[in-house]
Formats: sequence, structure tokens, C-alpha cells
Amino acid sequence: MARTSSSGGGKAGRPVTLALVAQRAGVSTQTVSNALNSPELLAPGTLARVQEAIAELDYRPHRAARSLRTRSSLLIGYGVQPASSGRSTPVLDGFLHALSDSADRAGYRILLFAEPAAEGAGPSATGGTGDYDELLREQSVDAFVLSGTHRGDPRPGLLHKRGVPFVAFGRSWSARDTGDWVDVDGAYGTAAAVDHLVAAGHRRIAFLGWPRGSGSGDDRARGWREAMRRHRLSVRDLRLSSVDDVDAARDTMRRALPGVTAVVTASDTLALGCYRALWDAGLSPGEDVAVTGFDDSPAAALLSPSLSSVHQPLEEVGRACIRLLVSRIRNPGAAPEQILLEPSLVVRDSSAVRSAGGPAPGPQR
Amino acid sequence: MARTSSSGGGKAGRPVTLALVAQRAGVSTQTVSNALNSPELLAPGTLARVQEAIAELDYRPHRAARSLRTRSSLLIGYGVQPASSGRSTPVLDGFLHALSDSADRAGYRILLFAEPAAEGAGPSATGGTGDYDELLREQSVDAFVLSGTHRGDPRPGLLHKRGVPFVAFGRSWSARDTGDWVDVDGAYGTAAAVDHLVAAGHRRIAFLGWPRGSGSGDDRARGWREAMRRHRLSVRDLRLSSVDDVDAARDTMRRALPGVTAVVTASDTLALGCYRALWDAGLSPGEDVAVTGFDDSPAAALLSPSLSSVHQPLEEVGRACIRLLVSRIRNPGAAPEQILLEPSLVVRDSSAVRSAGGPAPGPQR
Repeated sequence: MARTSSSGGGKAGRPVTLALVAQRAGVSTQTVSNALNSPELLAPGTLARVQEAIAELDYRPHRAARSLRTRSSLLIGYGVQPASSGRSTPVLDGFLHALSDSADRAGYRILLFAEPAAEGAGPSATGGTGDYDELLREQSVDAFVLSGTHRGDPRPGLLHKRGVPFVAFGRSWSARDTGDWVDVDGAYGTAAAVDHLVAAGHRRIAFLGWPRGSGSGDDRARGWREAMRRHRLSVRDLRLSSVDDVDAARDTMRRALPGVTAVVTASDTLALGCYRALWDAGLSPGEDVAVTGFDDSPAAALLSPSLSSVHQPLEEVGRACIRLLVSRIRNPGAAPEQILLEPSLVVRDSSAVRSAGGPAPGPQR
Repeated sequence: MARTSSSGGGKAGRPVTLALVAQRAGVSTQTVSNALNSPELLAPGTLARVQEAIAELDYRPHRAARSLRTRSSLLIGYGVQPASSGRSTPVLDGFLHALSDSADRAGYRILLFAEPAAEGAGPSATGGTGDYDELLREQSVDAFVLSGTHRGDPRPGLLHKRGVPFVAFGRSWSARDTGDWVDVDGAYGTAAAVDHLVAAGHRRIAFLGWPRGSGSGDDRARGWREAMRRHRLSVRDLRLSSVDDVDAARDTMRRALPGVTAVVTASDTLALGCYRALWDAGLSPGEDVAVTGFDDSPAAALLSPSLSSVHQPLEEVGRACIRLLVSRIRNPGAAPEQILLEPSLVVRDSSAVRSAGGPAPGPQR
């Protein structure tokens, strides 16, 4: 509590004002203002006296005053998605904490606002730009971090047109990228899952993904397909699709089970559907058929068998977003920057057991 | 996109200023300022002309200017907890979305900042108040929403002392409550689980909770105990404790299994530990022993068997927090208000099967 009792704010919570600093230093308020904004105008002795008073009183310039002076709010807008948006959103708190922590360190704060559900909105929908407009007109924020970007997302175009700095968590997946983004390399993650399964002796490795057309889903499918080709394995009849729902995935998987020894999936929810299809067939996930998920959701470690899953470095994404955004604010004309972060496969019981057809255990590596 | 193209902001993203409004209306900037702040000073014709120019240009007063004028930032601070704080935090996005949506409707915005891990900090720790101090000194926020409150939490006392409005998600659990809070009635939730299990014929219903001393944990234990007494059932040797970890819960439960037909737990993680202990003993959760969880985490519905769990109304909590906070800002002297929301038991397969010793099925209800 030492910090609390010694900290500023004056008695009874009254804020320390410029006038109070002036009084303490025995100068005019204009002189205090000069000391803050144009210190070169003051005699060294006067400047020292004012700085001493500022330190003694622990004076912090009023944020709104600074904001008016600099024409910047030092706030970064972030629209929080509705929980029921139907996406398999991984837990956000790691991302949000890293985002606000990095922003704090760079002298910014995150301004949160509620994003309407935009996913799946038609081309004529205003989906998601209303609040952006309002925040810009109020000059409440200097910049935005976007998440949940998707094909046809109107936000990047809007912000680009207005000359407002932004960074997206997630590629725009459109023909031309209009700005900075940070994303996780989904293809790298599913390829890592294939490599892991091939090393354990699997050859018939299916991919259970979402229906074609979603940027991140197609990307995850590509990682599996390219890794299979690299290992000279056939992908024929092994690409399966289901919406992101346990029972739908179970139905899809049930029909496809014969003849596969492992399944790479595009989400932990789809992996769960695989578990159920295996149980329905009297088979054991991890023992009879290996399964990998994607997202490393909290459930993954808790399942029985625990689920191997591709882990997204969400805290690193948060930090990288702020890094790009601060560069963009300082240098609006620079070429767009993109950061693709590598996820990592967390190996657990669902893929730990060697395939019966695999190479014998030994000191190969 | 209609809203986008017709909205203000001027050409090339240049904001509409007071000066531009004055020019359009053919008046001085002071007159525009008066029209906004003291319209009674103006002649009706002049006022109408200024208002017309404001509407035509879609002028919004600069947020910082309004903030300086009103000495309020219209921002509410919310500290986001680190992801690895060790608590079984339910997914936050429902709460955060409701919080920012309600704030938006009330004319406020949520300012996010990174909270250091405060839980478990000793009495001399400054844990968690540093950022609060700084935001107050900058006058960046008008009020705070606190979450993750715990015994010995220094934040409510600090804010109370400074006269800063705040509302906590979670009781302070201290001898005297120093402010407004919204919480979920944990005891109600575990009592509902007991009622549900008793109705299914269970009599030996254990409680697996956290070690004594945590506010919410003790509250959930109380709900179980009182409901058991209400049903005239013994609680002797049926209160079990484990830290919130699957394997620790499994060990605790394994020793306690003989003689119980149902287990009410204080978290979904503890319930998972029960599942494992049952499997270790060759028993089936939901068939041989009923299990209920708490939090209704995304994993609950995905488990096999799916886990009955107490669902917390997080969106309602978010809305209630803003409602109390806005009342507090408007009426700082009013008596503290507290809202305790009822959670609901979501019944799934882990508790759906009737106990062997229960009453015969029939048209009782």
C-alpha cells in the first residue's frame, strides 16, 4: 500500500492542477505551461523550480488538455465481438491482456466498444462500421485494432479511406491487402500436425475442416495438403468438411472413418466430433486413431484422452499488433507491414501413440 | 455502406471543427460555443442558423474539448486480468461485450488496461493499484469496473478513499462492504444442483470444493450444505477439498468415492477430476455416479458425458455493472447498491440418469 499513500492526487482526491504547481513554484500558470511544452523559453533556474514543484506534487497534465494540445487522444479502439458470433473464438483474455499491457507501455490505452455481429452480413450491410464512424467523428481514438476480420469486411477499407491507422489481427483475405496485420500461420500449424503424425508412422491422414470459403479454414486445409504432398502421401478422398459443431463433425467423420489412421482437424470442436465418431465405432481416440485439434482451447488439456492441438501465440499477437500500430501512427506513409506468427503443436495423448504400421521405435533421432 | 459515405468527418478524413461550423453559419466561434453550451444566450434566429450548420456538417464536439469543459472523460476503466492468473476464469467475451454495449448506450466508453496479477499478493503488496493511481492522476477515467475482487483487495478501499465511483463484479468478501457490486449467487447455484440430484433420488451427495478461505468457494460450499440440511440429508464426511486442478481433484475424489452416488463441484475443472477418478475406478460418470460442475465453461457441453453445470449470467452481470455505475456517477451520495444474480443449472448427461435408489419414475410432476 506504500504506493497508494505516497501517490499524488492531492487531499481528498482533489487533482493536482497547473495552478497548484504554479503557486508552489512561485510562477505564473503560463510559465508552468511553458515548462511543459516549450522548456527552452525559460531561464534554467525557473525551469528547475517548476520541475521541482511538479515532482513534489506529482503533477500529471490532464489527459484531455494534453489531448487537445496534441490533437491526439492516445487511445486505441478495439471492438469486442459478441460471444455468440458462432466462431470458435479461443479465450480472449490472453490477447486482451497483452494488447493493453503493450499499449500501456507505449503510452496508449485501449478503448473498448461493443462490435455488432458482422460475420456473414451481406454486402449491403453496414455491419460493424457504425461505431467506428462515431469514434472517429468524436476524435475519441487515434487508431484501431481490428479482430474477427473476414472476407468482405468493410472496416479496413473505411479506415484506409479516412487515413486512420489500424492493424488487424487476421489477414483481410481479400485480393489486395490494404493495411498492416498480424496473423497466425494456420497452414504452418496443420503442416506441423501432419509432420508429427507421419513421424509416428501414419500414412492415411485425413483432414476435417470447415466448408470451403473461409480464409482461415482454407489456409489450414492448405497446410495439411502441402505437407501430405511433401511426404508423398495421397490426399485423395481424405479432405472432409463440416460446420464447426460437434454433432455435425461426428456425422461427417463417422462416414469417413474406415481406412484412416489419423485425423488433423481445423478446430478443437471438430476434433471432439472425431472423438465421438470413434467412440460410436467402438474405437479409442489416441489408441486406434490419432486426432489433432486446433486452438488449444482450455478444454483440450481436460479431455480424455487429452487432445493434441495447435496452440496460437495470442499474447505475442497482441504485442505485435501494438508494435505495428505505434509504427504506423509515427510513420503513416510507410509501406504496409505484415507479421505471420508460427503456432506450435502441443502434443498430448490423442496423438501420442505410435501407429501400428509405423517404423519400429529406435534411436533414429 | 450508406452510413459510411454519408457520415461526417469532412473531406479526406479532416474533422469538422467549431471554426468550420462558425464559417458556415456566418457567426463567430464564440457564438457556436454558446449555441452548444449556453443556447439561452443566443437570439432564436442565430441559434437556429448554428444548429442548421451543425446538422449539415454533422459536427460532433471534440471529445477532449467536451471532456475539459465538463471535467469528465466519459470513460470507465476496466483492468483485464492476466490469463495465467490461476483462476478458473470463465470466458470473458460475453461479459466484456455486454459491458461495453451497455456503456455505449449510456454515453460512456470502456478504457481497458492491463491488470497485474493481484490474487495471493501479501498485505504489503501494491498489487493492482498502480494503474488505478495513474489513470486517476491523468483524469483519464471517471469511474471503474473491478473484476477478480478477493479478500484483502486494496482497490475498493483506494477508490472509496479517493471518492471515485466504482462497481465490482464480485463481492468484496470483507467485513464491511465499501461500495456497489454485482455478483452471481454461487450458493444458489450449488443448492440448485443438490435439489436436482435429490429429485433424481440421490441421498449421498458429496461436495468437492476449494480449500476453505476463498469467498466464492466458501459460498458455493454453503449452498450445498444448506440444501442438504433442508432435505434432511447428512453432510458428514461429504465435504471434500482440492485446489482447482484436474489431477489434484482426481486424487481427492478417488479416496472419497465409495459410498457417494453424486458429487456437486465448485468448478468444471474439479468436475473433470471427478470424471477421471470414476474412470480409474471402472465407473461411468452420469451412469454410476452423477456429477455437476460450475461455470458452464465451453468444455462442459463438449465432454463425454456432457457435464451438467451451473451457468453464470455474465452478460446480465455486465449490464448490471454499468447500470449501478451510471447511477453512482449521477448520485455519488446514495447508499451502496448490491445486485445478486441467480445462476441456472444446465442439466446434461452427467446428471441425467436417475439414481438406482431413487423413487420410481411416474407422473409425480
